[in-house]
Amino acid sequence: MSDLFHPYRALKQKVLEANLKLPRYGLVTFTWGNVSEIDRTTGVIAIKPSGVEYDAMTVDDIVVVDLEGNLVEGKLSPSSDTATHLEIYKAFPQVGGIVHTHSRHATIWAQAGRDIPALGTTHADYFYGDIPCTRLLSPEEIAGAYEKNTGLVIVETFHIRHIEPMSVPSVIVAGHAPFSWGIDANDAVHNAVVLEEISAMAISTRALNQEITIQPELSDKHYLRKHGVNAYYGQR
Amino acid sequence: MSDLFHPYRALKQKVLEANLKLPRYGLVTFTWGNVSEIDRTTGVIAIKPSGVEYDAMTVDDIVVVDLEGNLVEGKLSPSSDTATHLEIYKAFPQVGGIVHTHSRHATIWAQAGRDIPALGTTHADYFYGDIPCTRLLSPEEIAGAYEKNTGLVIVETFHIRHIEPMSVPSVIVAGHAPFSWGIDANDAVHNAVVLEEISAMAISTRALNQEITIQPELSDKHYLRKHGVNAYYGQR
Amino acid sequence: MSDLFHPYRALKQKVLEANLKLPRYGLVTFTWGNVSEIDRTTGVIAIKPSGVEYDAMTVDDIVVVDLEGNLVEGKLSPSSDTATHLEIYKAFPQVGGIVHTHSRHATIWAQAGRDIPALGTTHADYFYGDIPCTRLLSPEEIAGAYEKNTGLVIVETFHIRHIEPMSVPSVIVAGHAPFSWGIDANDAVHNAVVLEEISAMAISTRALNQEITIQPELSDKHYLRKHGVNAYYGQR
Amino acid sequence: MSDLFHPYRALKQKVLEANLKLPRYGLVTFTWGNVSEIDRTTGVIAIKPSGVEYDAMTVDDIVVVDLEGNLVEGKLSPSSDTATHLEIYKAFPQVGGIVHTHSRHATIWAQAGRDIPALGTTHADYFYGDIPCTRLLSPEEIAGAYEKNTGLVIVETFHIRHIEPMSVPSVIVAGHAPFSWGIDANDAVHNAVVLEEISAMAISTRALNQEITIQPELSDKHYLRKHGVNAYYGQR
Repeated sequence: MSDLFHPYRALKQKVLEANLKLPRYGLVTFTWGNVSEIDRTTGVIAIKPSGVEYDAMTVDDIVVVDLEGNLVEGKLSPSSDTATHLEIYKAFPQVGGIVHTHSRHATIWAQAGRDIPALGTTHADYFYGDIPCTRLLSPEEIAGAYEKNTGLVIVETFHIRHIEPMSVPSVIVAGHAPFSWGIDANDAVHNAVVLEEISAMAISTRALNQEITIQPELSDKHYLRKHGVNAYYGQR
Repeated sequence: MSDLFHPYRALKQKVLEANLKLPRYGLVTFTWGNVSEIDRTTGVIAIKPSGVEYDAMTVDDIVVVDLEGNLVEGKLSPSSDTATHLEIYKAFPQVGGIVHTHSRHATIWAQAGRDIPALGTTHADYFYGDIPCTRLLSPEEIAGAYEKNTGLVIVETFHIRHIEPMSVPSVIVAGHAPFSWGIDANDAVHNAVVLEEISAMAISTRALNQEITIQPELSDKHYLRKHGVNAYYGQR
Repeated sequence: MSDLFHPYRALKQKVLEANLKLPRYGLVTFTWGNVSEIDRTTGVIAIKPSGVEYDAMTVDDIVVVDLEGNLVEGKLSPSSDTATHLEIYKAFPQVGGIVHTHSRHATIWAQAGRDIPALGTTHADYFYGDIPCTRLLSPEEIAGAYEKNTGLVIVETFHIRHIEPMSVPSVIVAGHAPFSWGIDANDAVHNAVVLEEISAMAISTRALNQEITIQPELSDKHYLRKHGVNAYYGQR
Repeated sequence: MSDLFHPYRALKQKVLEANLKLPRYGLVTFTWGNVSEIDRTTGVIAIKPSGVEYDAMTVDDIVVVDLEGNLVEGKLSPSSDTATHLEIYKAFPQVGGIVHTHSRHATIWAQAGRDIPALGTTHADYFYGDIPCTRLLSPEEIAGAYEKNTGLVIVETFHIRHIEPMSVPSVIVAGHAPFSWGIDANDAVHNAVVLEEISAMAISTRALNQEITIQPELSDKHYLRKHGVNAYYGQR
């Protein structure tokens, strides 16, 4: 089919496939969770529809919106978390894909209201430092544009704490659950899988040792051997 | 086949399918667990037979009883927990389906004799407040009509604590295990799956943080965006 | 084939099938674990061979021994734990099948050197009271006929603590792992599956509540509704 | 095909198969983890390529290097952990295969910076004593030849603590993750599976009992009934 007639088909297909990875990696129960990807050239975002079963989802169910949340293409309502995605895309220009889940172990840290501490190289291979937990939203922020304000508090967390969002491509929202991102939808899901694994490891590490954190030099080494100009992991 | 000759077939089929979801979602070991659904028009309840393997169960094995527990249709004995289901149906007129399991993490809270605390939005999306743990049955209640009394103590818990049963569609019976319900059998199983997931999350959240509970405004927001007249989650 | 020429074939087939259930229920890693069954009429025991993979095991690999451990039929060496099985069969005449595994959560209790406390009805449905942990073997008992002495210390535990072995059809050997039994090999495996589940539940129940134990009347009720002359669970 | 034209094909095939066991046993997420095997006659090592997906890996992707790390055969870069493998092969002449993973529970002990204590016979059947955790590398060792220095600190750990590497065929590197080895690649993977299982058991055993360790005589008995000249486990 021609791109002329189906300009968002490729983007929607990528977003569909990224969404279908969520149940495959055990990150979601029922319809909990959603993935989006932005096309920075045209400024449109493809995102999962709200409350639709993964089993039955097709490319035509994926919704396309613009950065203000206006519907561009699609028969269904977009994910109720769309406004959160939009704020992240607007504030972090390098982000190309976003995923939200209630994956068990990352959500446990969110419920505990604690940063996920960097405790080993599994963490450092993907995240450069602790994964921040946001502050609680105020009652006014909750009563108002809740999903938009969730996005704003995520952005605020990275700004206030001077964290570069591509170096720590995940956040946990206090009392709620994680959001992860990456260069595209697929990369965001990849980071969400890693986040869940290191969240599980961190819970039990804390049970064995309340005090320990990763050696800073080891964190640097592992992060930098996989990221940046001097990376040497993988095929280059 | 005509409904005239098989008036309970559709109800039994729904109950069979809901029961078969229990092993699929990992909620049961062996024959532990049972699902029922009531037809409020005719006042009959279809329920799993006692001690029958899920693998071999057919629609003809499902037992139909009335609200007093009299056999209406079926060759097998109904679940030994039938009397508990009946009391819940009698006291909570909005309940259309009930499920009982010994799912691991919900049962852990029952054994600990503790309410499952509302700790995050995963909980708040389905349950409006803590999930109550009943009091222990008295020795007399255990020695007497035990299963009926289990139902009565569940009902008492919701009355004494002024909990609306459709807003908190699950309970844990002290020293025993959970019961969940919903508008029909399928919805009850859905709630049982969520109960198991939030039970697991709550155990580890407590290991990281003994004190925390969900922010009340956040609980309200998440419950009410999925339930009631102002809900906006899903396709509407 | 005629029983005259293959007198142990049926027994060996039952033992093969019971052994193959161990990996299916997630109770074993590699070749860890073994199941046996006794034919009380002829006094022979069929048991898994030592160190053979479950994937490749056939009925001809099952070894038949007598109660003194003499080889009756088979090309392979019997399980290294055979002498433990024999002592249990000799001391507990109602036992018809025995299983030994290193299933994760039951083994954790064995390593901790603690009885598995009765904490709920899931336990009480199958086990009438705490599941005992043996004393440690003495250095002499270990240096001597170790596997036979393991059986003797199991038997001693039930005698000294006045536990009826069919009412508590499992034991954990301190520092080692569990043994379960039943009326035949299949029943023994069933009890081993339950043991693993309640062991997991008990670990986390203890994390939430250090003190609680099951109400004695509730334990009686659940055990006796499934066992003995007044049982009413299942199809009768 | 003739060995003359494909001298490393058999070795590469064994290493491919051992690598493919890592996802099958649940030891790896994505491309984390690598297995190698050495041919002591020719002094060459076959190892997994860096950052390649297990699903798509073929025998031609396996890289062959010599003990100094020089490329002998292969189109891809070898695993970034190759230099660690080489130091282990050079220092421990009985080692024929090595595996590195970030398997969840062994990594938790590494992150906690604690030896994995010998707590039961499951451990003692494979490991003769505690599994050591290395010291932290110095900032200089990390900044320098990091992967080589990781190998050197592993070797140092066994030398300083007088541990015979074939009796304790695994180590955890502080803040990082485990390495296991064996007589060949397949045996190394086998030991890595056992390491993960006993790591999980040890975490929960410590939750129930902070003090306990295995009885020394029991450790001796179990290790020696499976290893050494007087072993009697399995078919002999």
